[in-house]
Amino acid sequence: MTYLMINAPKKIDYQSSIKLMGKAAREASLALSSISSVKKNQALLEIAKSLDKHRQTILSANLLDMELARSNKLETTLLDRLELNNTRIDTMIEGLKQVTELPDPIGETSDLETRPNGLRVGKMRVPIGVVGIIYESRPNVTIDSAALCLKSGNACILRGGSESIQTNRAMGMCIKNGLAETGLPSSVIQVINEIDRAIVGELITMSDYIDVIIPRGGKSLIERLIQDSRIPMIKHLEGNCHVFIDKDADHQKAINIALNSKTHRYGVCNAMETLLIAQSIAPKILPKLAMKFSEKGVELRGCNQSKKIVGNLILATESDWFEEYLGPTLAIKLVLDVDEAIEHINKYGSKHTDSIVSENISTTQKFMMEVDSSSVMTNTSTRFADGFEYGLGAEIGISTDKIHARGPVGLLGLTTEKWIVFGDGHVRQ
Amino acid sequence: MTYLMINAPKKIDYQSSIKLMGKAAREASLALSSISSVKKNQALLEIAKSLDKHRQTILSANLLDMELARSNKLETTLLDRLELNNTRIDTMIEGLKQVTELPDPIGETSDLETRPNGLRVGKMRVPIGVVGIIYESRPNVTIDSAALCLKSGNACILRGGSESIQTNRAMGMCIKNGLAETGLPSSVIQVINEIDRAIVGELITMSDYIDVIIPRGGKSLIERLIQDSRIPMIKHLEGNCHVFIDKDADHQKAINIALNSKTHRYGVCNAMETLLIAQSIAPKILPKLAMKFSEKGVELRGCNQSKKIVGNLILATESDWFEEYLGPTLAIKLVLDVDEAIEHINKYGSKHTDSIVSENISTTQKFMMEVDSSSVMTNTSTRFADGFEYGLGAEIGISTDKIHARGPVGLLGLTTEKWIVFGDGHVRQ
Repeated sequence: MTYLMINAPKKIDYQSSIKLMGKAAREASLALSSISSVKKNQALLEIAKSLDKHRQTILSANLLDMELARSNKLETTLLDRLELNNTRIDTMIEGLKQVTELPDPIGETSDLETRPNGLRVGKMRVPIGVVGIIYESRPNVTIDSAALCLKSGNACILRGGSESIQTNRAMGMCIKNGLAETGLPSSVIQVINEIDRAIVGELITMSDYIDVIIPRGGKSLIERLIQDSRIPMIKHLEGNCHVFIDKDADHQKAINIALNSKTHRYGVCNAMETLLIAQSIAPKILPKLAMKFSEKGVELRGCNQSKKIVGNLILATESDWFEEYLGPTLAIKLVLDVDEAIEHINKYGSKHTDSIVSENISTTQKFMMEVDSSSVMTNTSTRFADGFEYGLGAEIGISTDKIHARGPVGLLGLTTEKWIVFGDGHVRQ
Repeated sequence: MTYLMINAPKKIDYQSSIKLMGKAAREASLALSSISSVKKNQALLEIAKSLDKHRQTILSANLLDMELARSNKLETTLLDRLELNNTRIDTMIEGLKQVTELPDPIGETSDLETRPNGLRVGKMRVPIGVVGIIYESRPNVTIDSAALCLKSGNACILRGGSESIQTNRAMGMCIKNGLAETGLPSSVIQVINEIDRAIVGELITMSDYIDVIIPRGGKSLIERLIQDSRIPMIKHLEGNCHVFIDKDADHQKAINIALNSKTHRYGVCNAMETLLIAQSIAPKILPKLAMKFSEKGVELRGCNQSKKIVGNLILATESDWFEEYLGPTLAIKLVLDVDEAIEHINKYGSKHTDSIVSENISTTQKFMMEVDSSSVMTNTSTRFADGFEYGLGAEIGISTDKIHARGPVGLLGLTTEKWIVFGDGHVRQ
């Protein structure tokens, strides 16, 4: 099947071709809503089989993408995200199998209550409909997103980064094979194989055909989509996460949690970016922490007060409190008490994940109630803000939105509920 | 307090004044999230008291709005919506009292589960934050929206139609009084008192300060907002609702439900607009129904097949199947079976409310599963699609969106959930 990589994309009318994809997806979604779990799982396993069978085709396609990316002088981190190998294909196959094991949320009926007039009113969990997913260079997002959309009964249109176009085309073929083997129409999961950026503009305004857009990529991608999209989005902006060490903190827990939140991984959205410490406990705990952070090579930028305790801190400026460093840099601020900590977090944070370290129930309770973030934690590393750690079994992303889904989004985030009403000839008076 | 109506609005910099309102609302929302139910209910009752006390001021303000509206030759239906009298003020006061009786959803913790590593992970129900509500001429929406936002712990900014500016200004003063009496800041509920349309443009793009926009008005208002808004919306587009009379329908239930769905009220979104009848039952049921609809003065527009049964039908065109008449007109189509009915509804309907009349459990089950609408009903008049009828105790609107809230939206639709995580020094390996 190497012809896939030799043929150049044909010049076509993108606008009408993407509309046709949308129309087909809408039709497929209506059929999908009542397909059994058995059938959906079968399709996932067939896609896994096809990936396994066409490893060489996928790896060759990926080589072409990598060559072009290198000649375009892409950054090393991007090259690393783009690259596939047999182990990474194994991981995708394993991911598909794991999704078959997740419980199917569709059709679940809840809250069925009988009204005084005898009408029975409840809710049924249903797919959202058609999901558009726009992502960057990581090819595993193609398989991962396809699997979660299919399992939750949604049709999807996937648009990966232009750097991974050959890889995605090859994997798109495997998806098509898997669907065909199961007798499902190919319009259930469609991968866009054209690199023209105008396609994204078209995709995010087709409100007749697409119910929700999920961008999976960096802040700049998402900010562009916010400007142009006419379709609701489930989106992830940034993670400026905090740990607050309260005066009643257990010192060892505080040190472990602060270190883990910052240094477990740097480039992730649930890493701590600012550490807040109660003034009264800072003289005891900050010197130890500063030493440990220095050992790890973390640059510390502190407020005036913290500089009085640790002399070699860089002095932080106002902009540091807003910063998502995504690297080995940490802002440190001393605060009077939990109230000032909450105020700081709600003012400068990004409403992602914030944690308090304290043994005092009243203080932690106040923090848990008043911090306005998608995940609020007590005595826990911020690194636990993750769909798998929360037991969702899968994660389509971490939402920083406030409506529909907040924080880690699993299969449930790809569903919605409709009202179901059972009468016996009921009419309104 | 008649000065309120004498002073002309000052020329000010709208852009910065609306930004200040947004900033104040954001601050108020953070304080509101942990205020007790007792306090919120007290504020609602104080607003009710103030409305009662300032009836004359409100009615005089409303007279000014009505005079201007008449001289601008507004339609009679709009004039009717705009007009206040003592009974309508009583209804608003009663509404406030009813909201105090609703259970407070905020702070409710659910699904708290212990993960294998001992971490306890759950969800807490919290306010969305700041809600912007944009509506048209009905002044009761001001009080109604203010009450629901306050009860659900949200700060809100209310922007009514320019026709009701004096009335809203007077009621805004009552809201301010009520908040002050309770010791709550006036920025908890802010009523925009300027008529400049540019304000709306500013309001729907202040994503730093406003979390969700709820338009409560006609389709043209909402379509305009979709174009310009950069903030998630909970919106209601249109209600093209269907009743399908299956071959296994009970004739009497079918006739009652069809008549009630169409003729109980014409100008409402949950009225039936197209009636689908199974071909095999149509010769028996359609003549009776046609006669009853004629008696009520309903114009019938039917497909070819139905015209063969009722000769004096107007022949429907393709566009009739899409139409939300909002008046005494009904489209009628004969279909082969439940599959064709579902296909028709999913193709032409607006995903609002659709009902099947049938005694057959397999047929109704199929209909309930496969119709992709916010309310799907069995043997029930579509007129029951309503927050009060569903037992929500209140209704901020009926959403035709698919994410966050679908169908009738009550207090819960003004809330969201955050993740809460309790560890004991947990760090990631």
